[in-house]
Amino acid sequence: MARYQVILAYDGSGFTGSQRQANSRTVQGEFEKSLRTLGWSGKSVLMAGRTDTGVHATGQVAAFDFEWAHSAEKLLKALNAKLPPDVAITSLLLASADFHPRFDAVSRTYCYRLFCEPTRDPLRERYAWRVWPSVDGNALKQNAGIFLGTHDFAAFGSPTTPKGTTVRTVTKTEWRKMPDGEWQFEVQADAFLYRMVRRLVFVQVSLAQGKSSVEKVQHALLKQGKLLSGLAPSHGLALTKVNY
Amino acid sequence: MARYQVILAYDGSGFTGSQRQANSRTVQGEFEKSLRTLGWSGKSVLMAGRTDTGVHATGQVAAFDFEWAHSAEKLLKALNAKLPPDVAITSLLLASADFHPRFDAVSRTYCYRLFCEPTRDPLRERYAWRVWPSVDGNALKQNAGIFLGTHDFAAFGSPTTPKGTTVRTVTKTEWRKMPDGEWQFEVQADAFLYRMVRRLVFVQVSLAQGKSSVEKVQHALLKQGKLLSGLAPSHGLALTKVNY
Repeated sequence: MARYQVILAYDGSGFTGSQRQANSRTVQGEFEKSLRTLGWSGKSVLMAGRTDTGVHATGQVAAFDFEWAHSAEKLLKALNAKLPPDVAITSLLLASADFHPRFDAVSRTYCYRLFCEPTRDPLRERYAWRVWPSVDGNALKQNAGIFLGTHDFAAFGSPTTPKGTTVRTVTKTEWRKMPDGEWQFEVQADAFLYRMVRRLVFVQVSLAQGKSSVEKVQHALLKQGKLLSGLAPSHGLALTKVNY
Repeated sequence: MARYQVILAYDGSGFTGSQRQANSRTVQGEFEKSLRTLGWSGKSVLMAGRTDTGVHATGQVAAFDFEWAHSAEKLLKALNAKLPPDVAITSLLLASADFHPRFDAVSRTYCYRLFCEPTRDPLRERYAWRVWPSVDGNALKQNAGIFLGTHDFAAFGSPTTPKGTTVRTVTKTEWRKMPDGEWQFEVQADAFLYRMVRRLVFVQVSLAQGKSSVEKVQHALLKQGKLLSGLAPSHGLALTKVNY
């Protein structure tokens, strides 16, 4: 028996999130199903992070114990042949027996994509949020730093365990403009609260559209008031990396 | 009554092609349905080109006659509100009463997207063909010119009318490498045979993988032998422009 570590990429559109749930199509459920077709009889795989319904990933990490007689490369190919088209393994490695994708992670990186257009764009909206009126790019870049550092993000997300802490340390917030005009927000933190990235994006877009003020956002960050209601849609978000 | 000209963009994944068919979800069918909800009672809209099942578009053109009391801008917004998420109108203009999107077109432009990766990539494969083994980029660029000019493309596609001509004039063939490593093939011709672009792409990829020879391709082009069997998948293809 050996422990394997995999990186999963998926199009979240067809999944009710990453974590296994009865009667729902989830990434974990599909992954375990494909493992079982190869003879795996474990109870469940370990996942690094929970992504919501509709959220994508290029860097989700999972681990499982498996007795496999062939090479890791063959296991990767066999699993990818079993998995449905909207999920794939991009890397598979042997890990130490005590590796835990969630507890061993020191930080997570998410990327949020958006573009500004007045009319719908069916070929871009599957993976990016269409925003209109347009945003002030300088405002996006200037305000991103507000969230850096250790703060109580209670206004930006719910704790991941009942009554758990809402303090998180954000180590990167960067907006990049792509050649095709798309904006990408990269954010890294030790861990995230539920829906925290989507609230951070919504707040920054509101600022960059002139609909909110920096003072209001700083107040939410310092006073830990009630959860902010605005939420960027899930389909613009992807978990891109789990760092160990 | 006035004639309107629209540009349609759609994600072809959920459509059985562009042309209306009984009992199938098609772009034309959805477009006519949305027009009817606004009171349109025409028999059918006119479309510039027929795209196959799974083929996308950013520049499909359609036209229809309609009595509409408000501005073109309002009609565009009203139609986009009715259309499903995978199809949208990106432009709507008044046209002359005899404008015909198909017969008036002087040329069409298609774009085919592909990328080279050994493993599946769910977030890119909806709109691009994953090719492996990798292609020689120089070969792609060097061989594209073979198809330029007026040729009998009988080996590359079926005529669009029974026993119709298979002679077409190709006016542009260009491979571009994108910053993320994706290859895009832009091809323009007066008109295309059925599945001609997908055969042109397949043949060029075979050449760039060292699986075929320029002589064989030139032979197919000069001798008009039977239809070539290789076909690049539909999901990498998009109709990008109809030129008038």
